[in-house]
Parts: sequence; structure tokens; C-alpha cells
Amino acid sequence: MTDPRITEHAKVIVGHSCKVKRGDFVLINASHDAHEFVVALASEIGRAGARYLVLDGDRQFDRAYMRAADHETLSATAPQVVELFRGADVLLLVQSHSNAMEMADVPPEKLQLATRAGAAIGEMMEGKRWNVTVHPTGAMAQDAKMSYEAYCDFVYSAILRDWPKFAAEMGVLAERLAKTKNVRVVGKNTDITLSVEGRRPKVSAGDHNMPSGEVFVSPVDTHVEGQVYFDLPVIYQGREIRGATLTFRKGLVVESDAEDGAELLNAMLDVDEGSRKLGELGIGMNRGIDRFTRNILLDEKMGDTIHMAVGRAYPETGGTNKSAIHIDMIKSMKEGGTIYLDGVPTYEKGKFVWE
Amino acid sequence: MTDPRITEHAKVIVGHSCKVKRGDFVLINASHDAHEFVVALASEIGRAGARYLVLDGDRQFDRAYMRAADHETLSATAPQVVELFRGADVLLLVQSHSNAMEMADVPPEKLQLATRAGAAIGEMMEGKRWNVTVHPTGAMAQDAKMSYEAYCDFVYSAILRDWPKFAAEMGVLAERLAKTKNVRVVGKNTDITLSVEGRRPKVSAGDHNMPSGEVFVSPVDTHVEGQVYFDLPVIYQGREIRGATLTFRKGLVVESDAEDGAELLNAMLDVDEGSRKLGELGIGMNRGIDRFTRNILLDEKMGDTIHMAVGRAYPETGGTNKSAIHIDMIKSMKEGGTIYLDGVPTYEKGKFVWE
Repeated sequence: MTDPRITEHAKVIVGHSCKVKRGDFVLINASHDAHEFVVALASEIGRAGARYLVLDGDRQFDRAYMRAADHETLSATAPQVVELFRGADVLLLVQSHSNAMEMADVPPEKLQLATRAGAAIGEMMEGKRWNVTVHPTGAMAQDAKMSYEAYCDFVYSAILRDWPKFAAEMGVLAERLAKTKNVRVVGKNTDITLSVEGRRPKVSAGDHNMPSGEVFVSPVDTHVEGQVYFDLPVIYQGREIRGATLTFRKGLVVESDAEDGAELLNAMLDVDEGSRKLGELGIGMNRGIDRFTRNILLDEKMGDTIHMAVGRAYPETGGTNKSAIHIDMIKSMKEGGTIYLDGVPTYEKGKFVWE
Repeated sequence: MTDPRITEHAKVIVGHSCKVKRGDFVLINASHDAHEFVVALASEIGRAGARYLVLDGDRQFDRAYMRAADHETLSATAPQVVELFRGADVLLLVQSHSNAMEMADVPPEKLQLATRAGAAIGEMMEGKRWNVTVHPTGAMAQDAKMSYEAYCDFVYSAILRDWPKFAAEMGVLAERLAKTKNVRVVGKNTDITLSVEGRRPKVSAGDHNMPSGEVFVSPVDTHVEGQVYFDLPVIYQGREIRGATLTFRKGLVVESDAEDGAELLNAMLDVDEGSRKLGELGIGMNRGIDRFTRNILLDEKMGDTIHMAVGRAYPETGGTNKSAIHIDMIKSMKEGGTIYLDGVPTYEKGKFVWE
């Protein structure tokens, strides 16, 4: 019997997150690992009177293809695929895999080419209803260092909650941030100041990510100064960057290093014009996500963390930076981290001032 | 380790069947059951310098969707999907499933609506490189009443052969048929005459079906007279029609009955304007396919059989009939069957006259 939470999850995505309605065309990208969930989605989409198509985004296909194809072939996305994404009313990406390391033996320069080519698809998401969600597997539980059952409990308790209520709670921070010119983050190896003047901070309460729970904004990408150290590992295409430090001058990364994976970090920063600029500051608000599970979708929502992403900004918050990449990097704020809004401590000693 | 025949199969499809070349966009429709084969295809397509997209055509998705959706929703294909098929250079459909009966509890009228809606996609295949092939599974072996290993041997020995040589052998019949006005088929409960005057009979040697091995032609659809009895079961969307008899007058089915499944047969004949007309006469030539396995792709190629399809004709042979359906029905010729070309016995007593 299918776990009834899978059906509930599908209802949340189709109803709350994507607001699927009669006549919509929903494009789903998922691998077979998410099979049961896609069956539940198909049923909910049918009930809504919408139509759908499932793309099989299996990483074993990608690995085989990328190893065999030459650089010319990998350097562009098929225009037919771009058109397909353009024509969708709703885009739904289901993260689910049986091996996070599947791309480990694809040459990094090929991954970089494919990432750059994929930007054409990323651009198609703007202005659409879209959602990235997660379907638990054994491999994902393994990365989280949890049993499969405990991991399922963890994921579904993060997903199946009262989103409107949680959105209102997060709105308090978003409103303060909207009136702020400069945000300063101080912590371990970190003192960085960035301008968010005139930007429109957003509450993430399930429309684009599920689970969700963060307040995020794209900074003025020419006004980022200082150094930031990311305590938690960055997992990118199955590879890892540990203990990254970025130093910004006038909005550009001028120094970058990492305790582990510096080469990958530097390769990603060199992808294009926009990949050395800051695309996002996010503040994790979901204390239900109480541990690092090596999945950025959940990790960046963790309470007592902030994250910053180099690359693509979110236009809906007023961001303008464009890039093929958007790599989130997380900093723990638990031990001595402070967030100042225009000089006023707003988060310190593990609490927001209104808590 | 992947069965090396899977890699060989992928090479045959990408190279011989579809002639995939640099810059092509290959659209693959397959379920997870064909996973290993799609990995091999991805590699071959990458090597050819082409691009690809995999649609997950899992029947569990379709079943869930069709049960949930109303008739209005099922009565049209999303235009975005039609455009996707229109834009493909190569269409590749991989038959592979873990349960032939998956659609058994979808109401027949919904299947009929979906079939009719799917015609928009069928039309997109015209003039393109396309191929339907098969990847063996346990469920498919079960339907063939064979062990999985024996079934794999059966399928791959039918696929991995010298296609140009076999094409030349089949060309003898195709040439005779091209000079023929009337074909008469006589056998058990059967005496039917159809005109193929001016039509262009084709040899099927792997371009559109793999395995292959038949000579086929779309008849003049107003000149079909007589009765034909199909000894072998018709399997359609997991359902079965046994012992069907069709009677044609002036090209139209005027009487239809079956020992089992008459209701389904009659529903399919009523799908649209063209579903009562004869779309194809095929003559199975592949004596390597020596048994009925309940998969029409293979069954219709069997030596010592003919098949006829109601519905859509093949324009490349001069056929004009249009329909959302194309249902092949097979007749065994082993026991007393005779094929006359303009009155001359050409196949009788289990042999062609030149054999």
C-alpha cells in the first residue's frame, strides 16, 4: 500500500504550491525513484482537469550521455526542449535519486558546459508557477545519516504542515527586511555587509520549494563587501565543497577558497559573467528542519542558518544578476552569529529579537 | 553487468534504424522497465552528437490519470505535447512493461477518448524517422509463456541480425506485390479480396519496427470484399479479442464478431470515420519469430502469417485512410492458407512459390 503521506504530498503540491487548474499543462521532471509520488501527482492533476507530461530525468541517462557526447554537443540545449519548458503552465521538479554520486565520473568541464547550456531552461521558469520538491529514497536517507523510515518522517513532517500560518510568522522578518538598507552578518570568520535597498524580500512558504521556510532577497549585486565563511558543506552535482570562504569587493568575489573542493568552487565561479556575483541572501526559518541532510532544498530552510547563493538572482525580489548557476552555500548562525539590519541586531544568540 | 546485447540493440536502433546524426533531436518514450536500454541509447545518441529527451510513459501514471480525469480533460492532447512531437527529428518508442494488464480497470470509454486524442501525435510521425522497439521484461516473458532468459534470447536473436540481407530476401515479394492489382487470401473461415492497384508495397527491415520482417501495403480502402477470420488473439491496451471475424463490403466493415471480446472490437471500430476501413495488409516473413508472444510488434512479423489492420493507413505505401486507431489482427496461414496475386497462387502449403 502506498504511504498515505505520498497522496497528501501530491495534494499539497498540486493544490497549495502550484494551484493547478483546468486546462493547465503541467511538465514534471522526475526519475523512477519518485515513481509512487508521480502516480499520486498524475491522479491529482487528472482530478484538477489539467494535462501533464513526465520527463524521466534519470542521472544514469545523463551520465552515459555526457560521457559519450563531445563538447560541441553539450554546449547547447535542444531548442525543442526549451520550447517545451516555455509552453508549460506549471513546472514541477521532483528531487529523488538512488545515488547522489552518479555524476562523480563525468569530467568537470563537461558538467560545466551542460550547466551553462541549461541556463536556457532556467530562464523559462520566470513568471511561471513552478515547484521543486523531494521524494525520499534510501540513498537520500543515507546522505542524511538516518534510517529510511526516520527520513520519511522527517521529510513529511516538514511538508505536511499549516503553510498559511507559517507564512504569517515569517512575514514579520520579511517586513523588517523590506525597510532595511544594509544587512550585516557577523559570525565565525565572517563579517559581510550587503545592500538590499529597494529590494522586495519574499517569504518562501511552499510556492516554489516544498518543504520550504525561508525569507530571501536578492541583494544589490554591486554592494556586497566583506568575507563570509560557510560552515556547512556545499553539495553540487554529487560533489562536495567544504569550509568555503568568499571575499567580496564591490559585489564581486575577489578571493575564494575552501578546505576541500576549492577547484570545483573556482570552476563554478568561472561559469559566466554572473557567477561571481551574489544572487541571494536567504534566512532559514524552519526549525522543524533541525539537521543537515546534504540536500540544499531542505538544508537552506534550517532554523538558525543563513545562506548565500552565487549566480542567478530572483527577479521577483528585484534581483538583476543573470547566470547559469545558482549555488546556495549555508552558514550556521547558532554559535555567535549575529544579523544586523541597518546596524540593529535582529538575530543574535540563537533567537530573533521578537522571539 | 549490462547484457552486451543491450548495447548492440542500442547501436542497431541509433545507427541502422533511425540513422541518428549530429544535431538531431531524438524524443524517446519509455518506461523505467527499459531503464538499461535507455542508458545505452543515451550513450549512443551522445556519441552521434545528437540531443535527446526521455518521456516516462509509465502505464501506472496513465492509469491513475485516466481514472481521475473527466471526459472533457481526456478528449484532447495538450498542444504542447503535439508541438514537442512535431519538433522531434527522431521518435523512438520503447515497448517495455511490468504488467500488460495495467489498464484493465480504466473504463473503456475513457480509453477510447484517450486513443482518439492521441491521433494528433500519431500524425506527427509522418515523414519522420521513427522506430518502435522492445526491451524484454519478466511480464513480457510471462505473456510469451517463456522463461525470462529464453525470452531475451528470442528477442535479441530477432533483433541482432543482418538486416540488409534480409531486406533483399523480402524484396522479392514486395516487387511481385507492386505489380499486382488484386490480392486474395483464402483460409479457415476466410475468403477476402482487396485491391492494391497503384500502391507501393514496402519491406519492413528495421527502419520503423525492430525486430521487423514483413512486407506491407495499404489497400485501396474502397475495394475490400469478403470475410476474414483472425486465428490469433488481438491484444489491445491489455485487453483481448479472440477469434475475430470481419466482413467487408466496398471497403467497410459491415459485420464484426469475435469468440471473445466482441464488445471491445466493436468499440474500437466505432472510434472514428476511418476505423471501419482497412489500413494495412501485412505479410509476416520472419521465420525466426516462430511463436505467438502476445506482442504485436513481434507477432505480426511471424513467418506463415498475414495480418490486417483496421484504421490508419501508411501514406508511404499510397494509403489514404485516416484514423486514431491502427489495430493489427493476425491470421495464421500454416494450415491451408493461400495467397493469390491476381489469381496466381503465390503462397500455399506453408511456402512461397520461389522457396
